[in-house]
Amino acid sequence: MTAAPTERTRIRRIANNADYQAATLHAILDAAWLCHVAFHDDSGSHCIPTACWREGDHLYIHGSNGGRLVKLLSQGVQACVTVTHLDGLVLARAAFNHSMNYRSAMIYGQFERVEGDAAKRASMDAFMDKISPGRAADVRPGNDKEFAATTVMRIALTEAACKVRTGGPKDDAEDMDIAAWVGELPFAHERAAPVPHETCTVEQPEYVANWRG
Amino acid sequence: MTAAPTERTRIRRIANNADYQAATLHAILDAAWLCHVAFHDDSGSHCIPTACWREGDHLYIHGSNGGRLVKLLSQGVQACVTVTHLDGLVLARAAFNHSMNYRSAMIYGQFERVEGDAAKRASMDAFMDKISPGRAADVRPGNDKEFAATTVMRIALTEAACKVRTGGPKDDAEDMDIAAWVGELPFAHERAAPVPHETCTVEQPEYVANWRG
Repeated sequence: MTAAPTERTRIRRIANNADYQAATLHAILDAAWLCHVAFHDDSGSHCIPTACWREGDHLYIHGSNGGRLVKLLSQGVQACVTVTHLDGLVLARAAFNHSMNYRSAMIYGQFERVEGDAAKRASMDAFMDKISPGRAADVRPGNDKEFAATTVMRIALTEAACKVRTGGPKDDAEDMDIAAWVGELPFAHERAAPVPHETCTVEQPEYVANWRG
Repeated sequence: MTAAPTERTRIRRIANNADYQAATLHAILDAAWLCHVAFHDDSGSHCIPTACWREGDHLYIHGSNGGRLVKLLSQGVQACVTVTHLDGLVLARAAFNHSMNYRSAMIYGQFERVEGDAAKRASMDAFMDKISPGRAADVRPGNDKEFAATTVMRIALTEAACKVRTGGPKDDAEDMDIAAWVGELPFAHERAAPVPHETCTVEQPEYVANWRG
């Protein structure tokens, strides 16, 4: 990630909320399970949600070889990847000063295919580790046929920008006497109790027991 | 929303999860506070998160007149709007059968501007009602200057499709003897306690007290 924004990543709208630090970007991506990928083809612009995980200075996705997302991105189509966490609704004294607290990251670039069996396996292991640290040892690893049918892709975090809003409302001075409740209605981002499948025959391993943190 | 998918909205990948019913689409949109809008301009494809609300057969957004999103969409640029709710991680006996439970909606089309002061005010009131039913009466309504600086836009829900996955893992028959924990690690989508701003001088109104449901 470059410290200076590019023409595409310079945030103009409410620029006070812009953040170009790698630590902010990494934290936003690491808290996400999915991203939205925008790209353009003969049939127009598309916005596809897909699972993602970060390794170092790249964001990874994977998909079936036959899917449009993988086909197009493999051809080097330019993409814009966005991750957004909504943290709360911000209630102000004036209708137009209502806002939302959020953390969003936007990455521009082209995806590249992760080539080679070992590299693909390492990346998918990293994804499994994100889902459940330690789980890879419990399950059947991907076989050659499964890996052959799957494309792993990554986009560099070079051209990226974050936008973060926190805190309370920013009311106009002339509105301060309005007797409305002001503050934040926050979202919890919590995890619910694991639900074993009806065919499950084993006790919860540690990574399932720890799901709720 | 048409019962039959178009060439763009026909879901090919894991088509069993496709859903073209208006009730499903409405429920997914009504549960969302923001959408991701993809569009394309001279500088490439973009994926912008923005607040949204539904009225009837349209999804609405709003923005500052000066913003790129509003400028481009006002010109009739084709857009793809996606809303995604992630409901859980699905743990299977084989690495490649891991999945996610989700509800997503995708809408293709062009936005149109909501023209006329009365129509804009009615739409912004609907948005406020979604945020906090009854709150409009407590706050200063938008003034002429604020409305003049704001564009309200909407996209018809005509060309749309949903994809929904629920339930447990779908393991291969030959993997059923693997003694791994299988099931869902769910997300809670809960709301946290309202946080009054330091300048707040009034008791919680009903819509704040009811925030957590």
